[in-house]
Amino acid sequence: MRFYCVSLSLCKLQKLLFSDTKILYKPCITSRSFCISVFLSKKHQWGSTKKHRDIKLKSYFESMADPQMEEVLAPLRASVKEQGDLVRKLKAEGAPVLDVKKAVTELNARKKLLEDKELSLAPNVTFDRARMEDLLKRRFFYDQSFAIYGGITGQFDFGPMGCAFKANLLQAWRQFFILEEQMLEVDCSILTPEPVLKASGHVDRFADLMVKDINTGECFRLDHLIKAHLEKIVADKKTTDDIKADCKDIIVKLDGMNKEEMAGVMQKYKMKSPLTGNDLTEPIEFNLMFGTQIGPSGLIKGFLRPETAQGIFVNFKRLLEFNQGRLPFAAAQIGNAFRNEISPRSGLIRVREFTMAEIEHFCDPVDKQHPKFDNVRSTELLLYSACNQMDGKPAEKLSIGDAVDKGLVANATLGYFMARINQFLIKCGVDQKRLRFRQHMANEMAHYAQDCWDAECLTSYGWIECVGCADRSAFDLTQHTQATGIRLAAEKKLAEAKTVDVIEAVPNKGVLGKTFKNDAKIITEALTKLSPNEVETLEKDLENNGSYELVIDDKKFTLTKDMVTGKRYQKTLHVEEIIPSVIEPSFGIGRIMYAIFEHNFKMRENDEQRTYLSLPASIAPLKCSVLPLSSNTEFTPFVKTLSVALTKVDVSHKVDDSSGSIGRRYARTDEIAIPYGITIDFDTLKEPHSVTLRERDSMGQVRIPLNEIAGVVHNLSYSKQTWNDVENKYPKFEQQESKGV
Amino acid sequence: MRFYCVSLSLCKLQKLLFSDTKILYKPCITSRSFCISVFLSKKHQWGSTKKHRDIKLKSYFESMADPQMEEVLAPLRASVKEQGDLVRKLKAEGAPVLDVKKAVTELNARKKLLEDKELSLAPNVTFDRARMEDLLKRRFFYDQSFAIYGGITGQFDFGPMGCAFKANLLQAWRQFFILEEQMLEVDCSILTPEPVLKASGHVDRFADLMVKDINTGECFRLDHLIKAHLEKIVADKKTTDDIKADCKDIIVKLDGMNKEEMAGVMQKYKMKSPLTGNDLTEPIEFNLMFGTQIGPSGLIKGFLRPETAQGIFVNFKRLLEFNQGRLPFAAAQIGNAFRNEISPRSGLIRVREFTMAEIEHFCDPVDKQHPKFDNVRSTELLLYSACNQMDGKPAEKLSIGDAVDKGLVANATLGYFMARINQFLIKCGVDQKRLRFRQHMANEMAHYAQDCWDAECLTSYGWIECVGCADRSAFDLTQHTQATGIRLAAEKKLAEAKTVDVIEAVPNKGVLGKTFKNDAKIITEALTKLSPNEVETLEKDLENNGSYELVIDDKKFTLTKDMVTGKRYQKTLHVEEIIPSVIEPSFGIGRIMYAIFEHNFKMRENDEQRTYLSLPASIAPLKCSVLPLSSNTEFTPFVKTLSVALTKVDVSHKVDDSSGSIGRRYARTDEIAIPYGITIDFDTLKEPHSVTLRERDSMGQVRIPLNEIAGVVHNLSYSKQTWNDVENKYPKFEQQESKGV
Repeated sequence: MRFYCVSLSLCKLQKLLFSDTKILYKPCITSRSFCISVFLSKKHQWGSTKKHRDIKLKSYFESMADPQMEEVLAPLRASVKEQGDLVRKLKAEGAPVLDVKKAVTELNARKKLLEDKELSLAPNVTFDRARMEDLLKRRFFYDQSFAIYGGITGQFDFGPMGCAFKANLLQAWRQFFILEEQMLEVDCSILTPEPVLKASGHVDRFADLMVKDINTGECFRLDHLIKAHLEKIVADKKTTDDIKADCKDIIVKLDGMNKEEMAGVMQKYKMKSPLTGNDLTEPIEFNLMFGTQIGPSGLIKGFLRPETAQGIFVNFKRLLEFNQGRLPFAAAQIGNAFRNEISPRSGLIRVREFTMAEIEHFCDPVDKQHPKFDNVRSTELLLYSACNQMDGKPAEKLSIGDAVDKGLVANATLGYFMARINQFLIKCGVDQKRLRFRQHMANEMAHYAQDCWDAECLTSYGWIECVGCADRSAFDLTQHTQATGIRLAAEKKLAEAKTVDVIEAVPNKGVLGKTFKNDAKIITEALTKLSPNEVETLEKDLENNGSYELVIDDKKFTLTKDMVTGKRYQKTLHVEEIIPSVIEPSFGIGRIMYAIFEHNFKMRENDEQRTYLSLPASIAPLKCSVLPLSSNTEFTPFVKTLSVALTKVDVSHKVDDSSGSIGRRYARTDEIAIPYGITIDFDTLKEPHSVTLRERDSMGQVRIPLNEIAGVVHNLSYSKQTWNDVENKYPKFEQQESKGV
Repeated sequence: MRFYCVSLSLCKLQKLLFSDTKILYKPCITSRSFCISVFLSKKHQWGSTKKHRDIKLKSYFESMADPQMEEVLAPLRASVKEQGDLVRKLKAEGAPVLDVKKAVTELNARKKLLEDKELSLAPNVTFDRARMEDLLKRRFFYDQSFAIYGGITGQFDFGPMGCAFKANLLQAWRQFFILEEQMLEVDCSILTPEPVLKASGHVDRFADLMVKDINTGECFRLDHLIKAHLEKIVADKKTTDDIKADCKDIIVKLDGMNKEEMAGVMQKYKMKSPLTGNDLTEPIEFNLMFGTQIGPSGLIKGFLRPETAQGIFVNFKRLLEFNQGRLPFAAAQIGNAFRNEISPRSGLIRVREFTMAEIEHFCDPVDKQHPKFDNVRSTELLLYSACNQMDGKPAEKLSIGDAVDKGLVANATLGYFMARINQFLIKCGVDQKRLRFRQHMANEMAHYAQDCWDAECLTSYGWIECVGCADRSAFDLTQHTQATGIRLAAEKKLAEAKTVDVIEAVPNKGVLGKTFKNDAKIITEALTKLSPNEVETLEKDLENNGSYELVIDDKKFTLTKDMVTGKRYQKTLHVEEIIPSVIEPSFGIGRIMYAIFEHNFKMRENDEQRTYLSLPASIAPLKCSVLPLSSNTEFTPFVKTLSVALTKVDVSHKVDDSSGSIGRRYARTDEIAIPYGITIDFDTLKEPHSVTLRERDSMGQVRIPLNEIAGVVHNLSYSKQTWNDVENKYPKFEQQESKGV
């Protein structure tokens, strides 16, 4: 069976409905979660899986929902549910595939309308993306690569602040996942030979649709082209209402359309190149991998890896051996991956070159418990289940313990990682209220996946997937086993020993050697590799004909009874071979960084010109600034001493001895997210020497003895002390910084 | 002048001899230090630079040299010196270029003979590379990538131990260079559009010579092919002594040969494909960059970067601005680079994909002092100067302060980085006795470089370059300025204001607008861009002819006196524009790792079967092992408590509760370089609880209270305490581990 069902998943019903399909793949951002776009009908048998219907989930959104808002949303929710029910019904009845497909497309369209409306009604958080991007570019967090050469879309360089932020985020990730969980970290090659990515499915299926200008060769991503074209028609005053409605309808359904449908839309609306007005080609599937040749001959085709995961799978045997043959274990990799997007957009969200951090947790397919699950059991997550999506219901807050117990999340290991992902993102500055876990619906989940939840962050671009967390069953290891003939499997101790019948051919090496000379060796090898059925045939042939004909690479050898015999016996097995399941949390680092930027871009009350980034100290690019009050040379030795002391306790810092008032310099350090500022003033010169320490978010200030300051900032930076602790311990410094501006 | 001479360099004489040349480039491992292979003669004038002759250098090798060894080496040294003097003489006389070139090739050949002999006579350190590589693969430090698919040469995956070692090494690098020196770290794109690498010189010149089998297309790196072919001839008993001598002579001269010479050798010895016996093509220059297309059109050609440095150069303006316009500052980048080697070899030494860490220190070309030079002044380095290489003399030990003072090292900033590189490598486990700095001779240094020293480590592959440290003058910024028209320059405050004459064209916008309508704007722009000479011509033409003809993009505009006038005035300048010089330390991380492996692969005295890696604790993959004496369940809670306590203080560790004696398990942890081992035994169960702590290299053991152990291991791991301190503080544990085996 292609569909590998072990643990009871809430939406098993739904998955079975959609499983065993012929598939058109569409890449999603995290790794190999291709979307299924075309379905073949097949009737399925299944047991009672209605359990989830009875679960009373406390609705997170509902509990805080505005009744007026719900009034607006009610008809949209009902419309989604109506269509969800229709899809279920068609599936249950084994309706023709095209009917089901149409109904699913309509369901997605209604879901999108509901989500857009929800977002448009959400309490208005004033957020000015242009101002944030201006800050990020001006202070060189990141900017377009090769800008002096005109730049390339979809490529970004991280400047000192972005790079330090990224390095800190990755270090936090390594600490939180690899060290705390004792994972096996690897660092594998980026250039990947074709056969590896053929086996993984990327060579054949990792593609987007595009069309080309038949004269200039200019390329357009097809869905983007159609959307822009139809939006133009809608905006045109001369367009009739009927056509406007049709265009709007197509736009919401675009995501679910296949190649032929999109080609149909193109024809219907006679689309041409928006740049030249020239004709366009038929839709072409464009593989998103960057190709190259490895070695000078031009004969070894390779690609830049589109994800880091394959490096772990092809090393599975070495890693299992490193773990002394034991399951479960997790391997992890941080590294760059590449996708040749047809039209990159949305800043850091859709780029051609990006950093991923991926975990592959290998476990027994029939035992997906996790030893540390109880540690996270009470962690509350905002879960947007596939069923709620079909029913037009909002996401709901639930503890991961309950979610796993009730079968909403497929198993404890998947649940454990979801909770850890949630903890990690919040620790790094993602706003809890703008974070949800959305379950893949059956129509977007790869056929082999058991269950898949995306951690999505709400940004000004909408909900964006930042981390995927999927139970991928045994798919990847099976694919590479098939491609290489090398069994990527583990041995599992049997609860009790098992006795099996063995039948094998026993060669008589002496006679074979005399008879066949140099060929004896390959004959002996071939005999030991015969399957049980072949040995039976050999026995029969020897019995009936007195000889058996062995064929090796087109060469025939006639063997007689004195050369080989069949042997039957019983063997006691203590272990069995299993192909482990893989649970895969996959982090898009650039997207997480972007979400953190948006969630931490703030304006000062009463002074919207003063913007700042409230990044947590642990991942802030620099921990501390050192600000002499003026250019008075008496301050210089204190600045030097302080800088050395801070370096000694690993506190990254920036000395800002430029001119400009303290207030102005604070504002400048706030912009680059420096959480703590030390000011050296005339009181510092007096004994006992002391300095002012200021906290970025509250702008609170305290006075601290010079010889204690480095330790205090170290403790604050590495979460060993809170700002509250510091305020309680040291005297408040009263001078208002606004006076300094 | 192409040769940018500012500070007095010891080998200025020598450089001038070789400078101003037409160049054939050959890539070296670190970045852009192409070797110059063809010279055009040119007479040069220079002052007295004999200063270096009078320097009395204390010879490091000589002081420890064996007189017998020196007796053997003496004629070889004399032979190098004789040839070095000849080269100098020919240059001084302005001899024909071919004569000089022949003499240089012969010089290199003699140098190589000397070095080979020196190495062969060096005290015999027993080192078994096969055994070390077996250990590294068996314990998965690293291994060939995609091995289950047959593997690709020149690509390696780092397993858990190699990856952790690499991550720790990079973290140490970041701490040592970026944080301590407050450098600006960046993280730039790997995919690089062609124009960037055209400007840097890589598109045209980053190539190796190869030949192809004319039937099969199989490729061979030409120098490797010739060497293998000639060695076969030499080994053949039938070969005459004359031919043997000729072959040996060619082999030593091969490194210095150009395309035509190699083609000549191929013809002379009628070389065919060693695999098929087929004919071979003429030598082809094969560019070592991996090419690809960016975007779907196939029109934007790009390469995987062959080094990380260009990402810094193209961001120079942003970085300077980030540094508030001030020089000097340094930017740094850690990242992967790619080179499509024709025939990768020597394990981690010559690979297709590798990690680099590069620093670009931008400074005033006429002031290369370094504020922290005095901190390192007394650091002693083993320096192998270009002059010593020409004179057949060995490397010499010298403090960097003396080396800079005497002009041997070109300037203090270069010297500062050499000392820091030396400190860093030794801190990370490179053996001081197997580390030297070799100065590039003029014939291997890029024409724009001021001075270049390679940190070389002695391994079983000979001396290998691990870090390059070059003063690259203003070359890179100048190239990108020329290619883009965007001035990559800095402003420098003048010591005193300077008055200059200015002449410029002043357009009368009103009249121009009325006369030329839409073209008025480009005319105005063109006028403001006229050079002083052009303005003078304009003045004359207006005076003499009454009109001036302005040409913009083939369009002619006739301007009259009422439209434009010349204006002359004086301007006071407080700043001048300078193109900064770049000092570039460039680290090959894989090579450093390999050298550290070799320098730390040890065997236990009296038990050569027990090998271990003596990596410094700070970069060891794991800091500590936790070993319960047996599988007794009473130990389990202690193991758990200890693991939590160690995680809390950031001590990476491995619990080894497998069966096997303590001695055997120690041996296993020694293999993966774990510096400290904690054993939980029956005494641990008694109050006050205590454990045994063992140090890897000395195998010494002490007994430590359970509640102190995590702190002690933390301090040891992060160099806050030495093993000596610990042995002095805690009671020795006497039981011999050998008993446990």
